[in-house]
Amino acid sequence: MSRLFERVTVVGVGLIGGSLAGAMRAAGLAGEVVGFGRGEANLETARARGLVDRATRDPAAAAAGADAIVLAVPHGSYAAVAAALRPHAPAGALLTDVGSVKAMPVAALERAWAGRGPVVGAHPIAGSEASGAGAARLDLFRDRPCIVTPTATTDPDALGRVRALWTALGARVEEMPPAVHDELLARASHLPHLVAYALTAAVGAGTADGRAAIDYVGTGFRDTTRIAASASQLWADIALANAPALASALAEFRAVLGRLGAMVDAGDGPGLATALEEACALRRRLGRES
Amino acid sequence: MSRLFERVTVVGVGLIGGSLAGAMRAAGLAGEVVGFGRGEANLETARARGLVDRATRDPAAAAAGADAIVLAVPHGSYAAVAAALRPHAPAGALLTDVGSVKAMPVAALERAWAGRGPVVGAHPIAGSEASGAGAARLDLFRDRPCIVTPTATTDPDALGRVRALWTALGARVEEMPPAVHDELLARASHLPHLVAYALTAAVGAGTADGRAAIDYVGTGFRDTTRIAASASQLWADIALANAPALASALAEFRAVLGRLGAMVDAGDGPGLATALEEACALRRRLGRES
Repeated sequence: MSRLFERVTVVGVGLIGGSLAGAMRAAGLAGEVVGFGRGEANLETARARGLVDRATRDPAAAAAGADAIVLAVPHGSYAAVAAALRPHAPAGALLTDVGSVKAMPVAALERAWAGRGPVVGAHPIAGSEASGAGAARLDLFRDRPCIVTPTATTDPDALGRVRALWTALGARVEEMPPAVHDELLARASHLPHLVAYALTAAVGAGTADGRAAIDYVGTGFRDTTRIAASASQLWADIALANAPALASALAEFRAVLGRLGAMVDAGDGPGLATALEEACALRRRLGRES
Repeated sequence: MSRLFERVTVVGVGLIGGSLAGAMRAAGLAGEVVGFGRGEANLETARARGLVDRATRDPAAAAAGADAIVLAVPHGSYAAVAAALRPHAPAGALLTDVGSVKAMPVAALERAWAGRGPVVGAHPIAGSEASGAGAARLDLFRDRPCIVTPTATTDPDALGRVRALWTALGARVEEMPPAVHDELLARASHLPHLVAYALTAAVGAGTADGRAAIDYVGTGFRDTTRIAASASQLWADIALANAPALASALAEFRAVLGRLGAMVDAGDGPGLATALEEACALRRRLGRES
């Protein structure tokens, strides 16, 4: 694989950042892959697993000589990280990210990085409820979508390099405007997470005759709420960063749920069976694989 | 294993009924296990897999000589099945079931079987989104809860035999009133199913800029909606049979979801993070196993 970067610094070597670092390193896409983070234990895991060539907690050491910097931390940290790295980053350093929300965060990065180098937003759709460098997998992005979200001011050459990076890791790269990405992901990902957390909380509080409902859950509840084991701070951050689109998605979901609930209340068996069958057919088309 | 019944007839040899029939046969709990159903192909599968000694579509042949009859069909069929079998069943034949709702269905069976024999409601908490005799597994009930729901009129000897049956199959048997069971299962199982169907329908209808949101789902959505691939007619039937308790559970869930949505709208990061963290901690205590 041909080298795309001389030195790439990955900020945050958790599940996504660690997988990205390790996959870039394995594919020889960068002369050096540097891990930058706050937690010494997680950085050491990344080092021990060979996901990075070296790891540092020092922003100057992280940014020096980096021709590309990838943010793999919660959106809430973007501004602080960009400010910390900016004085030490070479002129022209490419700044990109892997965040689950694009419109507001990428706009914030464009402001924070203005005059320093190009900014390109990207979002590989991959992951699990696991977290940390210990959960990183070199094949995490293979055959998964990666959405790249250029804006009116995105540098075409930088865009091409980010596309080349994800393509080299086996992802299926697609471009769309940040706002379109955010509307789609609010429904495809952010809403399901909020629903899983809410269902866990509601069932967790449910009792009857002194017994706790959660003691009687089966595989259905476990599947449905598995992603409620995801890092809660990260998902609170995602929800707020994409608040308007998530609110719309939530309203759509509550409307559907309200219609189903009205059929239950009305004892409308045929209507309910038809509605559930439509959803069932749709879900079956997605298949069983995860 | 000592024999508990001379002849058991299992009505409906799908995932649950087929697994029960096969497990009883493997454990030698009955002199003969008879499968009764409507679909010739599924009955043939049950026969070919050795889940039953013989299979029939004739109610007279199914009920004759049966000292126990187990209903493993949707609640909506209970009255018709009981009426069809009653003229052919021996005096004293035990009627039990495996349904996911107990109060209304067991009361209906007590009326339908009055003067014929004892009725005992039971609900093994096991299953998956798969269905049919081809999906049956002999270990489906091992280490799973089985709730037995005696009423004021339940015959103690019949109750003991049903308890012994499920205990012999490795289930953890627990007794509670039918109404308590229904309140607990509305939350632990029926609500999650309704939520999964609703989430599938809502996301399935979501679009942005001509793109379909469902084309961008990842493992989270797939896990969260996996049970929406469950047999829709069965779940419509369960929802209606347990409508009052499900309505309460749905109201509790919508209240939690509304609180989370309000925090998103208000940009209340700390509040949202705290709420999600509570749900996350609860879900993590359940563990990853399904």
